[in-house]
Amino acid sequence: MPLAINCDMGESFGLYHMGDDAAIMPYITVANVACGFHASDPVVMARTVRLAKECGVKVGAHPSLPDLQGFGRREMKMEPAELTASIIYQVGALTGFLKREGMTLNHIKPHGALYGMAARSAPMAQAICDAAKVFGVALYGMSGTEHERVYMRNQIPFVAEFYADLEYDDAGNLLITREHAAVDPAAAAKRALRAIRDGKVKSANGKEVTVRADSICVHSDTPGAVEVAKAVRDAVAPYLA
Amino acid sequence: MPLAINCDMGESFGLYHMGDDAAIMPYITVANVACGFHASDPVVMARTVRLAKECGVKVGAHPSLPDLQGFGRREMKMEPAELTASIIYQVGALTGFLKREGMTLNHIKPHGALYGMAARSAPMAQAICDAAKVFGVALYGMSGTEHERVYMRNQIPFVAEFYADLEYDDAGNLLITREHAAVDPAAAAKRALRAIRDGKVKSANGKEVTVRADSICVHSDTPGAVEVAKAVRDAVAPYLA
Amino acid sequence: MPLAINCDMGESFGLYHMGDDAAIMPYITVANVACGFHASDPVVMARTVRLAKECGVKVGAHPSLPDLQGFGRREMKMEPAELTASIIYQVGALTGFLKREGMTLNHIKPHGALYGMAARSAPMAQAICDAAKVFGVALYGMSGTEHERVYMRNQIPFVAEFYADLEYDDAGNLLITREHAAVDPAAAAKRALRAIRDGKVKSANGKEVTVRADSICVHSDTPGAVEVAKAVRDAVAPYLA
Amino acid sequence: MPLAINCDMGESFGLYHMGDDAAIMPYITVANVACGFHASDPVVMARTVRLAKECGVKVGAHPSLPDLQGFGRREMKMEPAELTASIIYQVGALTGFLKREGMTLNHIKPHGALYGMAARSAPMAQAICDAAKVFGVALYGMSGTEHERVYMRNQIPFVAEFYADLEYDDAGNLLITREHAAVDPAAAAKRALRAIRDGKVKSANGKEVTVRADSICVHSDTPGAVEVAKAVRDAVAPYLA
Repeated sequence: MPLAINCDMGESFGLYHMGDDAAIMPYITVANVACGFHASDPVVMARTVRLAKECGVKVGAHPSLPDLQGFGRREMKMEPAELTASIIYQVGALTGFLKREGMTLNHIKPHGALYGMAARSAPMAQAICDAAKVFGVALYGMSGTEHERVYMRNQIPFVAEFYADLEYDDAGNLLITREHAAVDPAAAAKRALRAIRDGKVKSANGKEVTVRADSICVHSDTPGAVEVAKAVRDAVAPYLA
Repeated sequence: MPLAINCDMGESFGLYHMGDDAAIMPYITVANVACGFHASDPVVMARTVRLAKECGVKVGAHPSLPDLQGFGRREMKMEPAELTASIIYQVGALTGFLKREGMTLNHIKPHGALYGMAARSAPMAQAICDAAKVFGVALYGMSGTEHERVYMRNQIPFVAEFYADLEYDDAGNLLITREHAAVDPAAAAKRALRAIRDGKVKSANGKEVTVRADSICVHSDTPGAVEVAKAVRDAVAPYLA
Repeated sequence: MPLAINCDMGESFGLYHMGDDAAIMPYITVANVACGFHASDPVVMARTVRLAKECGVKVGAHPSLPDLQGFGRREMKMEPAELTASIIYQVGALTGFLKREGMTLNHIKPHGALYGMAARSAPMAQAICDAAKVFGVALYGMSGTEHERVYMRNQIPFVAEFYADLEYDDAGNLLITREHAAVDPAAAAKRALRAIRDGKVKSANGKEVTVRADSICVHSDTPGAVEVAKAVRDAVAPYLA
Repeated sequence: MPLAINCDMGESFGLYHMGDDAAIMPYITVANVACGFHASDPVVMARTVRLAKECGVKVGAHPSLPDLQGFGRREMKMEPAELTASIIYQVGALTGFLKREGMTLNHIKPHGALYGMAARSAPMAQAICDAAKVFGVALYGMSGTEHERVYMRNQIPFVAEFYADLEYDDAGNLLITREHAAVDPAAAAKRALRAIRDGKVKSANGKEVTVRADSICVHSDTPGAVEVAKAVRDAVAPYLA
């Protein structure tokens, strides 16, 4: 499986803009498209899927806990069955727009607090699997967490993400923040390359941590996001496809 | 095409119950399943699709204007493109649950104010067509309105509904109310039979009005809904499949 | 302070009905009125406040986590400052309807998961206090929990509730469920009386637990709610006002 | 009554930013604060009210139709009684934050489609009056429309707004758009001055139209909004207070 560069896309909502999708799309190979629960609306989804198609970018679903006001970054206690249903709903909605463009669903990547909770909780990860099985696609996640363990156990293809623009703690867990801090493009590119080649990253505390990088994630709402995406793309180009 | 009996199903929301779906499902042949914009949520949708499958009932989507508080019965001005996107979103979401059950989408029937607006406005009806084309399914609507004219012009199969439990005005238009009044089961069954055989119904004012009935609609939130559904089913049984 | 009988009221939403407020209102002395975040909408709030006035019932606010689909019974991680703002918003909204009826706010009682979380978490309880101070009213809660400790420390009048129709665990904590089970009216009345007179209740496991009962809570969405309310009212009448 | 400069403020939502409130607040005298139905959330409302207080700016409520996705710019059919309740809810919510800051409500100004609908429909304007009476404050609106006629008939103080940064049609009606176009600060300032002194403005078609300007409105989401606000403030300073 060749390397991918993925980015969360389509996170605008109504008149509210977030991220410069048109500027970032050309530098990525896979878009995680918001499904209306933490961001986006039907018009934004239609526009985002079309933009991805025009840029030759594959589309995955980026479902979330139902929390538009908190941008899906507030943890919520949901029963596994209702979480599964909630993800089927969101992913199904996205497939409508893919159908219109003659595209197929590439993968599912849980968003924000859902991503973080599933990394720690096997039942949450299982609930995500149960939705992924309906669509027969791979799941994006973090290696060394319940993502990897549970997805593999369910024989669902698992794509390990490395975050070029976020910090890790000493245990190799992502430090998820409500608003992302600015990051130096060159440093992010270097971190990405190192993760691909050596499977290593320096934690926020300076500790050497093992990581796996099947897909490099960049964010569209980080200040300087376009420059980061461009620098990462240039650096990892030899590993793509 | 054989006659169908359709009913709006899956209109509960969270802890709120509406309609006795389990009691009505056995008497209908086609369910219009709410998609979360005027009623329902992912858990209710999952449950409703499964119930339809168990009863051998076909499932269509019942998309609405985005108005949970108003149960989709308040008119809203939406641009055609955003209406199309909004319907693709809802129908797509439903197809996720159908996929899980190994079922396919049978049709689309716009809900409430959207249904009423599209009956009078060609651009609204066209926006609905544009969504239906994505899924390649028939549209349910009222004969003699923009539903019929626009759907036919777009070469989308059109299924004319007759409402067994709602009143018509002298022009043959449905009188849509926020809460449905009680109706006599025997009278509803008789109205349905007459619509099928003679293509006629008496308006609220007592005037003889021409109607077309490819599918008989009964409601689940009318007082006495189950009795109405049963009476209609018994009466029209010879015309089904 | 005389004893009160309180009930969560106004939990319908749009066309969805919950609880028979008109039947229960005559048996209570204090209504906790939903504010639109777990249930209710502006029309329901207007109607509920008017009904309380007509029945001579005092009105408190019943704010919730923002979770209409989960009826406020799913825990959510919110920052204390956003929780405080969220409660100010809801309580303020209710005061608009009270102003129209010439009534004043009696108290604040957090709903569902918010109630449960604040019972265990001092920062959550503090966030609730910060909102209560704006309105200068008492807080309803459970004795022996962070409710009591934090509210008292903030010098906010604390009213200890006893739940006539819910079970307690051996530590004296309420067992909050998504849907309430049916309860025998006579047994509920007896439990209430015993809590008032002896400060005792039998836990779900049959253990004797100490409780404090400044206000008896009955629910409107328990099966047989009206009979429970009536039985409790009759039993505790001598202790009211 | 001295002239005022008003601006719609607090229209961010969650992580979504709209308008540079901190930059514009110093140039205005009155803020119309969004109440969560077309924009804003409790955290944004808390922050906006505090910012207004710090800048010595008076605060009015800016209630809307319930349409976050459409930013309150899509018309919706609501019954007068539910519209009144909806406004009481929103304005009440805002008063909670004013209470915390020791401020009082200055006025109510309906937002977007609600503003436009009430200008043409007496029953809608009356529904707004019915909410304003509860709070005993003035209503902002457009002279020569149902705003003026109905508000005056109800003996509610009426403040006529002139929009420095939006176009008027030949009948003197505002041309409300979903996204505001850029406007030249000097031209906007000149338009404002002319409206104050001569009661005249040139319509989009170049026709001379009569207007009344008790309060000059500038927008925060117009491109170049801060420069427009500053230019208008400088120009009309002699007429303030």
